[in-house]
Amino acid sequence: MSGTESKVEFTISEMVESAAGKEPMRKSTRIFEQYLQPCLAELYGTTLFVFVGCASVMGNIGAFGVIQPAIAHGLALAVLIMLFGKISGGHFNPVVSVSVYLCGGMKLALLLPYILAQMLGSVLGAALTMGVFPDITYNAASGGSFVLPLTADLAKITLAETIMTLFLTLVVCMGAINKKTSTSLVAFCIGLTVSANILAGGGLSGACMNPARAFGPAAIANQWSAHWVFWVGPLCGALINVTLVRLLLGDQITRVWLK
Amino acid sequence: MSGTESKVEFTISEMVESAAGKEPMRKSTRIFEQYLQPCLAELYGTTLFVFVGCASVMGNIGAFGVIQPAIAHGLALAVLIMLFGKISGGHFNPVVSVSVYLCGGMKLALLLPYILAQMLGSVLGAALTMGVFPDITYNAASGGSFVLPLTADLAKITLAETIMTLFLTLVVCMGAINKKTSTSLVAFCIGLTVSANILAGGGLSGACMNPARAFGPAAIANQWSAHWVFWVGPLCGALINVTLVRLLLGDQITRVWLK
Amino acid sequence: MSGTESKVEFTISEMVESAAGKEPMRKSTRIFEQYLQPCLAELYGTTLFVFVGCASVMGNIGAFGVIQPAIAHGLALAVLIMLFGKISGGHFNPVVSVSVYLCGGMKLALLLPYILAQMLGSVLGAALTMGVFPDITYNAASGGSFVLPLTADLAKITLAETIMTLFLTLVVCMGAINKKTSTSLVAFCIGLTVSANILAGGGLSGACMNPARAFGPAAIANQWSAHWVFWVGPLCGALINVTLVRLLLGDQITRVWLK
Amino acid sequence: MSGTESKVEFTISEMVESAAGKEPMRKSTRIFEQYLQPCLAELYGTTLFVFVGCASVMGNIGAFGVIQPAIAHGLALAVLIMLFGKISGGHFNPVVSVSVYLCGGMKLALLLPYILAQMLGSVLGAALTMGVFPDITYNAASGGSFVLPLTADLAKITLAETIMTLFLTLVVCMGAINKKTSTSLVAFCIGLTVSANILAGGGLSGACMNPARAFGPAAIANQWSAHWVFWVGPLCGALINVTLVRLLLGDQITRVWLK
Repeated sequence: MSGTESKVEFTISEMVESAAGKEPMRKSTRIFEQYLQPCLAELYGTTLFVFVGCASVMGNIGAFGVIQPAIAHGLALAVLIMLFGKISGGHFNPVVSVSVYLCGGMKLALLLPYILAQMLGSVLGAALTMGVFPDITYNAASGGSFVLPLTADLAKITLAETIMTLFLTLVVCMGAINKKTSTSLVAFCIGLTVSANILAGGGLSGACMNPARAFGPAAIANQWSAHWVFWVGPLCGALINVTLVRLLLGDQITRVWLK
Repeated sequence: MSGTESKVEFTISEMVESAAGKEPMRKSTRIFEQYLQPCLAELYGTTLFVFVGCASVMGNIGAFGVIQPAIAHGLALAVLIMLFGKISGGHFNPVVSVSVYLCGGMKLALLLPYILAQMLGSVLGAALTMGVFPDITYNAASGGSFVLPLTADLAKITLAETIMTLFLTLVVCMGAINKKTSTSLVAFCIGLTVSANILAGGGLSGACMNPARAFGPAAIANQWSAHWVFWVGPLCGALINVTLVRLLLGDQITRVWLK
Repeated sequence: MSGTESKVEFTISEMVESAAGKEPMRKSTRIFEQYLQPCLAELYGTTLFVFVGCASVMGNIGAFGVIQPAIAHGLALAVLIMLFGKISGGHFNPVVSVSVYLCGGMKLALLLPYILAQMLGSVLGAALTMGVFPDITYNAASGGSFVLPLTADLAKITLAETIMTLFLTLVVCMGAINKKTSTSLVAFCIGLTVSANILAGGGLSGACMNPARAFGPAAIANQWSAHWVFWVGPLCGALINVTLVRLLLGDQITRVWLK
Repeated sequence: MSGTESKVEFTISEMVESAAGKEPMRKSTRIFEQYLQPCLAELYGTTLFVFVGCASVMGNIGAFGVIQPAIAHGLALAVLIMLFGKISGGHFNPVVSVSVYLCGGMKLALLLPYILAQMLGSVLGAALTMGVFPDITYNAASGGSFVLPLTADLAKITLAETIMTLFLTLVVCMGAINKKTSTSLVAFCIGLTVSANILAGGGLSGACMNPARAFGPAAIANQWSAHWVFWVGPLCGALINVTLVRLLLGDQITRVWLK
């Protein structure tokens, strides 16, 4: 695949019209394909991602280490980005959407709808998890929500989430938007980064990196303790990353100076 | 690979003639390549898939978690789809064949032969597993068939199979048939989705998602308890997915409205 | 990569001359690149593969399951085929060389040199393993050689090796030689098939599938009990596979009838 | 991707100007993109790699085997090489830089700056690990530094590091620089080789293969026992590999004789 093709993975604007081919697309179709279908893809993809993620946490109860949830989250995310990348960009994560917007990869008009779709999708995914698991398993895993030990140092946990999200959003911005380094394998790069991060910090902070992934299970299990950590940490990581990419790591188009 | 090439992964109709090149293919050759060889590929592929799958369950007896069978099923399936994709589409699963047919990716005339080939292949694979393992191991794993605990809530198990198959058939239809989102890496996407789903729901329902995978070991081990779950759940998942793809997620060609 | 490129992965004949470019290659260079370098690649690749393989078995002593050796063997093999594929084909396995020859993918003159190089490479790899591990670890794992329990039914073990090698050589012949189904990702397909097979049958027969992999550690550890199983089983698998590919699964060029 | 594209993965010289397009690049921009940005990429990439690596070691405390750190190191490295390959080559390892230089893949002027950037990045990554983990976990894992048992035979450990680095730098030189065997998937090949090597020798020597990876955590945890092993072993491996590639394994351009 060409660099151009991989660049559009995370953008959605022009694609639709070119797909329509020779004859102009009807207005209802264009609105559907440019606004509604991307939001549906974000909602549906987040539902499946959160379902698999929470279920893999339940399947891991009593196990040593975090290999099972690490691989499950990473593979499910990679596949979903591969599938929905050309429809919505395949974000499934509010701070990824913020990063893509700030790096110039999506329209502002879609930012809020995407975030709402991701949060709703996460609630649905978490509800489905509750629907299929026996209560005893569901409760033992707090529904797949992020529960920190009482002794946890929240500053350290927030910093861990910041660093891991920095890595994740670096892969998104450099692999999908920054032309010089973009790759057609970006979906696998993102999924495998999530796997690596969970293998690294899963036992510490849960390696959430995604406020939507935290929100749904928290809402269904009504477990809000230290929930802010999973918004503040990832958001800080995304903002630091955008600053680094825009100032230092981006190519001449992405960079805001030294053109 | 081009989008066109990846699209044909799950279709088999025109390929054969183009492969024949300039001179017209003899009738016996055409019938062999269009009807018999695809069915043989489905039979043989399902045999190898079920053999590896059941054997990995036996190798996992006494282990914690489901990582070993999850990776074994996923990798074997990915490789077999990669190999046989251009011959038969590489379904190895009746509800995948139903999904591909309903999304317009294969001829009706092949649907029943495919399903019979898959079921026969599964019986052969399960018989080979019985042939190579000591009786004590074979019996301890019920021959790799799906055995639910007596306390299992069959409605929940069926729902779990429905959701996981929804994900699997989504990857098939969007990655192989829907032109806008099809990818040459669809074989790996499907295999890795199976791995992710087993890591998520393997400890709950077995994460079968495939009536043929359930049928063969059940027949050889004569273990039919709750066998219907692994037909009803996956079939529901496939039908819901086709509805979503045809109505909402597909491109202008796949979608039945808003053209 | 084009289908043509991937086809040559396992053939070595014409490549060399085209790489030589415009001016004709000197005779000494041609002999080096067509005969000596491929044998060196087989020798060196098998050394590294057997070293990593045997070491991963030692690292797994006391562990439950075979995940660690399964992933180590598969990844090392995939990478080595990717690297040396365009030099020697990347066989590292006598029955793979036999399969490739019988499917028309290599010259007869190289068959015996390849097999000798693979066996010598395996001895070197096993010797290096003995060189780096403490005696107590080395002995506990019998140097990474295949040791069957005294109660093992050798007929069943041989059958298991036959079936698993059938799968492995199917991937080789269909993914690298049979034009219709060849793929540029064949190196990963082969490596991942080895991983899947070890996850399936590693606890039963060791999932050797490779007489050279068995020979080196056996020679260094002087452990020859039931060694013939790892020659007879894989060879039977390779021969059955060639028969199936040549008669039923191959395309019009590979197939010997119904042209 | 073409062979040309993949070749430049590990070189950085001409790229920049071609990226600048039609109009000539300003001098400050050229210096930034050719010298400063590559060093920043090496520094930042090594920071993230060492952070994930050390954290995965801490997450593995008490576990059996080395699967968790093996997969974490390999995936993080593969993704970072994929992202930064077109900026700096994506070395993140002094002996990789030495290998690339000796095989003709980078300018001498960048060698020392790269190595300093990698060592500084490693210190930063190790410091971040100390920052996020509780002291008790950090100390139990010696900060992710390489601690050998008192009974370890340092000659054997050094030999093990030599062999594993031989494999790693072989993949780098053959997959990224040697034209005949270079591949666009070299980033994954390198990452997966690191995973395979850790699965093989992680329990023996730690499977470091990278003096920078050893240096940072050693500096932060002030743990210098046998530190020289992780410089001498990898450097020997890199030098032996360059000799083999230049004399025997390389193509007509890479090889220094038999042209």
